[in-house]
Amino acid sequence: MKAIAVKIGQKGSFLVNVEPPKGPVGNQVLLKTLYTGVCGTDRGIINGLLNFAKAESGKEILILGHEGLAQVMDVGDNVRSLRPGDLVVPMVRRPGKCIQCGVGRQDNCEDGDFVEAGIRGKDGFMREYFIDDEQYLVKVKDNNLGKLAVLTEPLKNLVKAYDVYQTVSDRYLKMCSDGSYECKKVTVIGAGPIGILFSMLFSTHGFQVRLISRSDKEGVATSICKKIGADFTQADAIKLNPEEMVSDVFVDTTGRPEVIGKGLQALKYNGVEILFGTTLAGNYSITGALVTEAVEKNVTIIGTVDGAKQHYIEALNYLSMWKETYGNSLELMITDEDVPENSIEALNGDGKGEIKRIVRWS
Amino acid sequence: MKAIAVKIGQKGSFLVNVEPPKGPVGNQVLLKTLYTGVCGTDRGIINGLLNFAKAESGKEILILGHEGLAQVMDVGDNVRSLRPGDLVVPMVRRPGKCIQCGVGRQDNCEDGDFVEAGIRGKDGFMREYFIDDEQYLVKVKDNNLGKLAVLTEPLKNLVKAYDVYQTVSDRYLKMCSDGSYECKKVTVIGAGPIGILFSMLFSTHGFQVRLISRSDKEGVATSICKKIGADFTQADAIKLNPEEMVSDVFVDTTGRPEVIGKGLQALKYNGVEILFGTTLAGNYSITGALVTEAVEKNVTIIGTVDGAKQHYIEALNYLSMWKETYGNSLELMITDEDVPENSIEALNGDGKGEIKRIVRWS
Amino acid sequence: MKAIAVKIGQKGSFLVNVEPPKGPVGNQVLLKTLYTGVCGTDRGIINGLLNFAKAESGKEILILGHEGLAQVMDVGDNVRSLRPGDLVVPMVRRPGKCIQCGVGRQDNCEDGDFVEAGIRGKDGFMREYFIDDEQYLVKVKDNNLGKLAVLTEPLKNLVKAYDVYQTVSDRYLKMCSDGSYECKKVTVIGAGPIGILFSMLFSTHGFQVRLISRSDKEGVATSICKKIGADFTQADAIKLNPEEMVSDVFVDTTGRPEVIGKGLQALKYNGVEILFGTTLAGNYSITGALVTEAVEKNVTIIGTVDGAKQHYIEALNYLSMWKETYGNSLELMITDEDVPENSIEALNGDGKGEIKRIVRWS
Amino acid sequence: MKAIAVKIGQKGSFLVNVEPPKGPVGNQVLLKTLYTGVCGTDRGIINGLLNFAKAESGKEILILGHEGLAQVMDVGDNVRSLRPGDLVVPMVRRPGKCIQCGVGRQDNCEDGDFVEAGIRGKDGFMREYFIDDEQYLVKVKDNNLGKLAVLTEPLKNLVKAYDVYQTVSDRYLKMCSDGSYECKKVTVIGAGPIGILFSMLFSTHGFQVRLISRSDKEGVATSICKKIGADFTQADAIKLNPEEMVSDVFVDTTGRPEVIGKGLQALKYNGVEILFGTTLAGNYSITGALVTEAVEKNVTIIGTVDGAKQHYIEALNYLSMWKETYGNSLELMITDEDVPENSIEALNGDGKGEIKRIVRWS
Repeated sequence: MKAIAVKIGQKGSFLVNVEPPKGPVGNQVLLKTLYTGVCGTDRGIINGLLNFAKAESGKEILILGHEGLAQVMDVGDNVRSLRPGDLVVPMVRRPGKCIQCGVGRQDNCEDGDFVEAGIRGKDGFMREYFIDDEQYLVKVKDNNLGKLAVLTEPLKNLVKAYDVYQTVSDRYLKMCSDGSYECKKVTVIGAGPIGILFSMLFSTHGFQVRLISRSDKEGVATSICKKIGADFTQADAIKLNPEEMVSDVFVDTTGRPEVIGKGLQALKYNGVEILFGTTLAGNYSITGALVTEAVEKNVTIIGTVDGAKQHYIEALNYLSMWKETYGNSLELMITDEDVPENSIEALNGDGKGEIKRIVRWS
Repeated sequence: MKAIAVKIGQKGSFLVNVEPPKGPVGNQVLLKTLYTGVCGTDRGIINGLLNFAKAESGKEILILGHEGLAQVMDVGDNVRSLRPGDLVVPMVRRPGKCIQCGVGRQDNCEDGDFVEAGIRGKDGFMREYFIDDEQYLVKVKDNNLGKLAVLTEPLKNLVKAYDVYQTVSDRYLKMCSDGSYECKKVTVIGAGPIGILFSMLFSTHGFQVRLISRSDKEGVATSICKKIGADFTQADAIKLNPEEMVSDVFVDTTGRPEVIGKGLQALKYNGVEILFGTTLAGNYSITGALVTEAVEKNVTIIGTVDGAKQHYIEALNYLSMWKETYGNSLELMITDEDVPENSIEALNGDGKGEIKRIVRWS
Repeated sequence: MKAIAVKIGQKGSFLVNVEPPKGPVGNQVLLKTLYTGVCGTDRGIINGLLNFAKAESGKEILILGHEGLAQVMDVGDNVRSLRPGDLVVPMVRRPGKCIQCGVGRQDNCEDGDFVEAGIRGKDGFMREYFIDDEQYLVKVKDNNLGKLAVLTEPLKNLVKAYDVYQTVSDRYLKMCSDGSYECKKVTVIGAGPIGILFSMLFSTHGFQVRLISRSDKEGVATSICKKIGADFTQADAIKLNPEEMVSDVFVDTTGRPEVIGKGLQALKYNGVEILFGTTLAGNYSITGALVTEAVEKNVTIIGTVDGAKQHYIEALNYLSMWKETYGNSLELMITDEDVPENSIEALNGDGKGEIKRIVRWS
Repeated sequence: MKAIAVKIGQKGSFLVNVEPPKGPVGNQVLLKTLYTGVCGTDRGIINGLLNFAKAESGKEILILGHEGLAQVMDVGDNVRSLRPGDLVVPMVRRPGKCIQCGVGRQDNCEDGDFVEAGIRGKDGFMREYFIDDEQYLVKVKDNNLGKLAVLTEPLKNLVKAYDVYQTVSDRYLKMCSDGSYECKKVTVIGAGPIGILFSMLFSTHGFQVRLISRSDKEGVATSICKKIGADFTQADAIKLNPEEMVSDVFVDTTGRPEVIGKGLQALKYNGVEILFGTTLAGNYSITGALVTEAVEKNVTIIGTVDGAKQHYIEALNYLSMWKETYGNSLELMITDEDVPENSIEALNGDGKGEIKRIVRWS
């Protein structure tokens, strides 16, 4: 069967024929891949920029794909919650042996001893069929979602980020004086899928959201912001004055230190900065004056990665909700779709002009 | 009566004669100052480095002193909780009109519209007598504390910091697998009163504490660390490798960006960096790689300032506990004590060789 | 214009002609009522059973209606967030002067000094037009909801209850070992609108839900439970053995002490019982053995009432989500709808055979 | 060597000679018992009232004693944190295999599959020597505590209860408008060791505490309440009107349903009732009106048992603090002390006239 893979230590992804999986037995499930999404991490692996990328033990190639949507074909004898025909989103990260992993929170793994499908130490979902354990499959209950469910995986990271934001914000009285979040200003930098989904997430909960990005591919960010009640500004955040971005919450999806430094200056008292981007480039000089401001203003900065099973479940809930409330915004985000054969060139390219590319497997 | 004051916009503190207070009426209390502590903020004001220092409206001079211990001389008719002879610690920051101030959390004031005794917009406690409202006076219930109670004010900031640390750490499973904090490593940088008190605080709760400082004035840090079960390392944190300071919690009391940058690299997964120092000097270049690490490791950074009334109450509890459990550690911290007349020169000096200097008023 | 009202101290509701409102000025909004819902509280007032029911100061009659959906007709000069044509849900409870009310949490009012539209001290929404302040109006962003938005008010109480459940459950590790809630069993007693909405709410978050009720009006509970993935059992909970209802969460919507006593026995370790019903009838003898069990099992029992503005906002989100995911379940709940003229008899009746009755005003 | 034991299924404790322990090896520690405390649970076992009391597998007798203070005699090769001469408090409950136990929270064990020294399935500390694992021994750092450290075990339960109280109270704004707890009223019922320690605990944190008890053995409660700043009322709580006990927090240490029912009526809005007593006797009829009140007032009721290792550590901190601040209050609580030979009769008696009895082992 077909798969898309990389050879670790070598640039470029390629189509490859691999053995179809055997099974399922016990609590295994046989799955047919419907769609896989492509994100910056995939391109980072393809371009050899991510030194944590790793094939399965004993293998030379790593099958890509951590954003998946699949259909159950067959189930092992012990499987209780899934039946043939069901749609599922497979989880990316699989637990190690630390205490966080032991309570189902491998997203907070404290020793780095985990594997991630399509990224490190485990083949991903860019193949026609795969076998997985029932416990790592999140059922899609809303069949109307269709291909939009492939957005579950990236969104689950943001659901966790929002969860963490809520938790750390318990350090002060976090709601407005009317008992809502409607007085709170959120600035999101970057109009890729992550920036757009962050904007939807905060907007849904009543925050005043402003999305800032250097580019507005095909006018999609402008169009979506209108539908979701957010503001869009086409600008390079680094060139704006902090006073122009005064925020209760500042979300960086670019990973650029210059943006993060600006964001820190733009925070109000009790402000929270969310670090989500991992670009690995750039630098910013933090001064003693800025440190003092962070102290005096009771600022919180959070880095956050991955998400728990519950965050996948809630991500699916958000997608259903947004499908109902945000018009065709989710559809607009999926700018590129193709079969595996025709996706390799785009995967090996720079992704310019795409918001979310997906691969259609059947 | 005597007071120690500064003239805003002019270097140096001085002894001055001021009118004794009138009253008390209503819920006011007349207080005789027993001791006041001296900290970096006082010296910052004296040297004109803190641009937020401000006299009371309509006044030219600002009476210094925000770390106080006083005795009740007389009470207004509506005062219920205090009687002549009681010892109290007066609160520094007084609420404005924002929602945080409205719930007694002026330490989290969200618009900056507050005053602070001895710092901004309100005369401090470096005077023989003063009048204050009952609600801003924290009763010292443990009379055995004596002059040690003057450490309440600086300590209350740390009690809040620990409180905030606890809150933000709810983002993951924060305790060890044995249901304690005994596996957690805390690194504290700076062996001033703040660094020493932070070490005591985390040690009391069972954390493994290591205090690192360039200097060890009179060997006090070494001596105290021995008594409290912490490690002391005389070194410049900036010159250590992050690998030498691997920590679950990294506490900076220096305000130096170089230390903070190193600390961020020294954090383990789910690590928390506490920013407490406000030196205003130095800078550190944050790279994209470090941002990525903060994201991948689910790191939290918290700036924290001041504390609520409850934090004063708990600070007094800690002092009583430590007086019982930490031998003469608290006494050792008070390295210098003098009457007002003899304190001016030291106040106007650089504080080298002191840990905590106090002024004895009666 | 028409209104439905009661005379305090006298049984029965009636249609009455009242003066149309004047305005709007300042931050006021003129509203045309579209729909109002009828609930047990309305019937309690109509039958003189609720001794807290009260007319506005100086008035003899109280206009009923606290579950409302209205359309903006005109806005005062200071109104910023609403425009003519917008749909809104008006809030029921209005803040007093206590600290909870001061932070927008009149749902947690600590001195009872609040008013509630249509219930105590304030005319309700069962009239053709009314004036209200912008801050108490929750905008319906999803225009597709139509009349379903009238369910926002009852649902917001449950959103708060779930919020409280989440908070109190932080006393132990509340999630399953796979990082979801999918191993948790929730039993809900009572298939009125509240019981059905509770079932939807827990089911949406992945809990295993079982709804138990003596009756199944028109088979609606059976039908809805099928659509939302819950189990339905037609039975009197009082007659079941606790062993037949073993639960992590036990939700009572009946207010009957006998049910609550049974539920307490049905709780697992760390179990939570949610008290939501207020029937005022019945009694149950708590034994020392049951108290011991509650202690040994680390049980939590929560009474919860009303909700904050944010809970209204999230209730609207849930309605949009469920409209997408739960088929016509919400529509099925609205069993009866009529114009005001034809609603009086039903209002004065016992509501048997209804799930949710609504009044259509235009 | 000597031990005090019971034969399960037979009334009365007795002195018995048992084999001294062998070891220590690995992470084991050999301990000499210094003191053991006696509590209601011991007498419950002795009188055959507790059906969960159980000997170790394969044994006929159960050595009593779960409140212990011991000295390290020797340590196994892998022991790192303890040395001969150290004082320790051994933990009572030992973890099973559930998720709560896995994170060191066997106090929240969710399947009942644990053992408790001196109570169920594991011999206790009423013997001259015993062997235990390092991880279950809590080091007493404050050597001045002396025999008072035997109060650690009962106190740790209350430290957890306070922790749980804090957590559940996050459902509303839990602090007073001055940022402290000083406006909050706590009523504690029962002047046994638990009631007295609860009073100390809440008083330490600034709450207004009132202790109510039918009896005041030797005037100790009156005397201690004076020292800790609490009120003492000698009365039967059941005979007081709820209006006479209006409380934010109502703590029952009697386990009597009649008291708990009264307490529920005495709660203010947002009030919390803490269930801690386990008397197994009595009953109280909960009415629908009382249920309605619990709902309308947003009440929380918590049962709570045992505590985690961290709660033992904090209990030791409180004891050190109270030794400093509460005069000889702790000493006053220990009303009876004797060697094992002379303790049997008292153990088999009804404990009338005692507050805390301890057995001195060396």
